[in-house]
Amino acid sequence: MTRYPDLNTSPRILLGPGPSMVHPRVLRAMAHPLVGHLDPQFITLMNEVQDLLRYAFRTKNPLTIPVSGTGSAGMEAAVCNFVEPGDSVLIGVNGYFGERLCDIAGRYGATVRRVERPWGQVFDPAEIDAALKQHPAKVVALVHAETSTGARQPLEGIADIVHRHGGLLIADCVTSLGGVPLEIDNWDIDIAYSGTQKCLSAPPGLAPLTVGERARDVLRRRKTKVANWYLDLTMIETYWGSNRTYHHTAPISMNFALREALRLVEEEGLEQRWERHARNARELWDGLEALGLKLVVPAAHRLPSLTTVMVPDGVDEAAIRRRLLDDYNVEIAGGLGAFKGKAWRIGLMGYSSSRENILVLVGALERLLGRR
Amino acid sequence: MTRYPDLNTSPRILLGPGPSMVHPRVLRAMAHPLVGHLDPQFITLMNEVQDLLRYAFRTKNPLTIPVSGTGSAGMEAAVCNFVEPGDSVLIGVNGYFGERLCDIAGRYGATVRRVERPWGQVFDPAEIDAALKQHPAKVVALVHAETSTGARQPLEGIADIVHRHGGLLIADCVTSLGGVPLEIDNWDIDIAYSGTQKCLSAPPGLAPLTVGERARDVLRRRKTKVANWYLDLTMIETYWGSNRTYHHTAPISMNFALREALRLVEEEGLEQRWERHARNARELWDGLEALGLKLVVPAAHRLPSLTTVMVPDGVDEAAIRRRLLDDYNVEIAGGLGAFKGKAWRIGLMGYSSSRENILVLVGALERLLGRR
Repeated sequence: MTRYPDLNTSPRILLGPGPSMVHPRVLRAMAHPLVGHLDPQFITLMNEVQDLLRYAFRTKNPLTIPVSGTGSAGMEAAVCNFVEPGDSVLIGVNGYFGERLCDIAGRYGATVRRVERPWGQVFDPAEIDAALKQHPAKVVALVHAETSTGARQPLEGIADIVHRHGGLLIADCVTSLGGVPLEIDNWDIDIAYSGTQKCLSAPPGLAPLTVGERARDVLRRRKTKVANWYLDLTMIETYWGSNRTYHHTAPISMNFALREALRLVEEEGLEQRWERHARNARELWDGLEALGLKLVVPAAHRLPSLTTVMVPDGVDEAAIRRRLLDDYNVEIAGGLGAFKGKAWRIGLMGYSSSRENILVLVGALERLLGRR
Repeated sequence: MTRYPDLNTSPRILLGPGPSMVHPRVLRAMAHPLVGHLDPQFITLMNEVQDLLRYAFRTKNPLTIPVSGTGSAGMEAAVCNFVEPGDSVLIGVNGYFGERLCDIAGRYGATVRRVERPWGQVFDPAEIDAALKQHPAKVVALVHAETSTGARQPLEGIADIVHRHGGLLIADCVTSLGGVPLEIDNWDIDIAYSGTQKCLSAPPGLAPLTVGERARDVLRRRKTKVANWYLDLTMIETYWGSNRTYHHTAPISMNFALREALRLVEEEGLEQRWERHARNARELWDGLEALGLKLVVPAAHRLPSLTTVMVPDGVDEAAIRRRLLDDYNVEIAGGLGAFKGKAWRIGLMGYSSSRENILVLVGALERLLGRR
């Protein structure tokens, strides 16, 4: 006897800030019967997942793995392994996730310095240089794709500045990996993390992470144990490395799903995928502007994967979202923090980024906003 | 173009220390198309998962949730939220996971005191009382089901001792929840955690956690922020509580899987499930002893979910495991730590705990060990 019925949620058109829609092949792979996490078959699969992640990150970094938690765990892993109490950390804050980076770094005893920009804007390399001249930092963290604002932070050339000042560069790529041009090796980024439920279109539950040699040296030279057991890369690198020393049990089915999602990325081709995201985003932006809606971020720094749009005066933003969900089965999101009640967030990520989804959303908004 | 073939791992008979085999209904639920994590449909599902977890834990604790990581993340959440730098913690160490608790508590600045027993033995309530008389502790942690040894720690009456000394009791129930009698409310345990891939037979990736009111008071009275952002229950309780305030994105598909796995627990009936685990374990023990094999843990404290058996002299334990896997598709595990190379670990957990699996394993061992 059970009190609850069969799982019966209705499928949605997921156009929020994640999760994105998951391709049926990924769902099917996830439902494959399990093998043990130390089974030779799973060890082969771990190698494949790592190799496919390197392809998506455009890196040769050996330490490239899916952290066994969601994107937020990836953020925490990127910080806690490279920060010791008293270390100086510089964080670019121009949205919700920059704030979160400050919160996390503070918990690990860092002296956090902020460089700030209003929500929706991005930083200029000269600002980072100036801030580091004033106060050197062991670690600099920037958000490549601010999921709270839809701004794309240019990263090319920033690592050179950070390295010149003796620091490491962390890039938050939660909403860019697999959908927005990202070049870990060419841009010389030391540490980058992401989530599976955005442009990779796997379910949430894993956080791709890549760590370059400069950062691994810092990890090896730590004076203190990493202050977080679950995310301690000194142990995780031996689990995902050639020893496969037991640390925790990897989420096996989630890794099945991620492997299939990454196979789809490789089949499409990473550059073709970036181009699809860009093309579909332009179509969305045109459609929204044709409805008289105002986009928050200037075109030059707009993310193709996430668009913020101002809620028109007098419109109950939550009511519109509710009707999109109830009447059209479409999910978009409201604003966070400074944008709460003022903006909608529309994601076109991975499998969700399609012309048909844009037609449904723009058509539904046209009707719900009384534009026709 | 992709370099990798379709996922094609061969299904296994999983009789190791986890993951256990997953029922087809759970795999099917996991493959259900996603909804957003703030979708009203998912919020209903979160309530159902919490309610079903309360059933499995035998508790009314409102703060009963699946932590968005594996069992090890559950262990860390159980420690880091209730320990502040300088706090005194007493840990029962009679296996690998007691050691891990010491490592984790130390990272959060605790003064760790150990009460020790040889691997495979369990603690007497009087020992805990004596240790607390010598040094009071804010937190006492014991492993209910030591996955490294197969020993079952009796917990009845221990919380009373701990509470009399003003402390909180944490119980590691990774390998007991859903398979071994466990009474959170009746035994007055303050904090307990588990994993999904053991007796609940869902894939790994979530860690059921329950926290009683006494422990929540301690959480509310903390002087410092929880030193771990991802596992900070002061934020997670508002995400899983009535506000549903965004913290991280719950692993949606994993929660679909857990809900179905818990529905199966409820359909079978928790007590009937305990009885099935006990009955099948006795059959396994009889079968192993009939082969002349020696069980590590005395019958009185043997876990039905995990059995350790001594490797006979002169037998290459890894070779036998490899042949079990290659020739019979059966996974069991070797020993950890003190038992490395000396013992096998055989799990009969959840959907894996069946008569047919025991017949296959005992029959295969009989042939491989040349007992017939």
